[in-house]
Amino acid sequence: MRNISEIENLIKLISKLPGLGPKSAKRIVLKLVNNRDELIKPLANTLAQVFKNVSRCKLCGSLKSNIEGCLNCEDSNQKFSKICVVEDIADQWSIENSNIYKGYFHILGGTIASAGQRKEDLLIDSLVERVKKEKIEEVILATSATVEGQTTAYYIQDSLKNLEVKITKLAQGLPVGGEIESLDDGTLFSAFKNRSSLNSNSG
Amino acid sequence: MRNISEIENLIKLISKLPGLGPKSAKRIVLKLVNNRDELIKPLANTLAQVFKNVSRCKLCGSLKSNIEGCLNCEDSNQKFSKICVVEDIADQWSIENSNIYKGYFHILGGTIASAGQRKEDLLIDSLVERVKKEKIEEVILATSATVEGQTTAYYIQDSLKNLEVKITKLAQGLPVGGEIESLDDGTLFSAFKNRSSLNSNSG
Repeated sequence: MRNISEIENLIKLISKLPGLGPKSAKRIVLKLVNNRDELIKPLANTLAQVFKNVSRCKLCGSLKSNIEGCLNCEDSNQKFSKICVVEDIADQWSIENSNIYKGYFHILGGTIASAGQRKEDLLIDSLVERVKKEKIEEVILATSATVEGQTTAYYIQDSLKNLEVKITKLAQGLPVGGEIESLDDGTLFSAFKNRSSLNSNSG
Repeated sequence: MRNISEIENLIKLISKLPGLGPKSAKRIVLKLVNNRDELIKPLANTLAQVFKNVSRCKLCGSLKSNIEGCLNCEDSNQKFSKICVVEDIADQWSIENSNIYKGYFHILGGTIASAGQRKEDLLIDSLVERVKKEKIEEVILATSATVEGQTTAYYIQDSLKNLEVKITKLAQGLPVGGEIESLDDGTLFSAFKNRSSLNSNSG
């Protein structure tokens, strides 16, 4: 039995989304076709709106509304003295959700060593501009604890060396719930190297 | 930090799809916004096309292309003498994928006892019409082995009683890989009741 081409196309496209395979894509498509007015129509419209109205901000790298402007860097109601540099928007969302940081974000769009990623593609020049222009007092480098992330952090540190701004990076050590026996050597090394004193005699 | 309303809406909609929650919806939205031309645009277009061009066939209950017609029941290249009655399109797809059945399908659209499902909403009258019109020799009732599925099968059997057509239902018993100790009483009962003879003396 031949299948309808539109349905085949939809299954193929949905299979490309992260965490989904052909089987879950089929299940989703069935849910969609059984809920035409509640799901297919609004989803098609919302995707078209996102395509039309949402782009990445060329200054800070975050998502920008083409109607309202960039809420991340142009939002005039909030002025911060800190800027947190991350690789991707997913990192920004994680940190925002954790509620442990209040300040600007700057999304590089990858790391220097990412496959096919050139230094020029990362928003490093615009970070320097923002630090100068927005009177930033601290740049927090929150790139991943990977070789690529740390190389990128080092490169950014170098790019900012002529500016009077405090540069920090996230602490490395045991993750919460981490069992010593199951940790890799790199994490153990960081944890030993950055160990903190618990009493006054140690200093 | 405020989020862009289009993005919020998209996350909300995607979270409603089966198997997806807010977290996986966010991951999918990130993938989408990072692949505007390869994903958002084609997905928006394909969904709009599905909304416009695909509906449920009023005769057989399967998906129907508004352009090409219903490939399931009107497909003139293939004539079958069997019709397999299932609850949902998902069931049709599963049976098609298994390649164990060649014939027509008839999709009821639920079961008689499904929540809020009225008998009139199920395509039972049109099944009777099809059996009459298309010279069907066998109706295979492939509803689920649940109370609702079996009640529906019984009702269909009753609806077809005045027609000269063979009516069969799927066998019930041990599933492949089923261990006796872990099977429920109902399955064990079916397996005993429908036991088959292995030698000639038993008959």
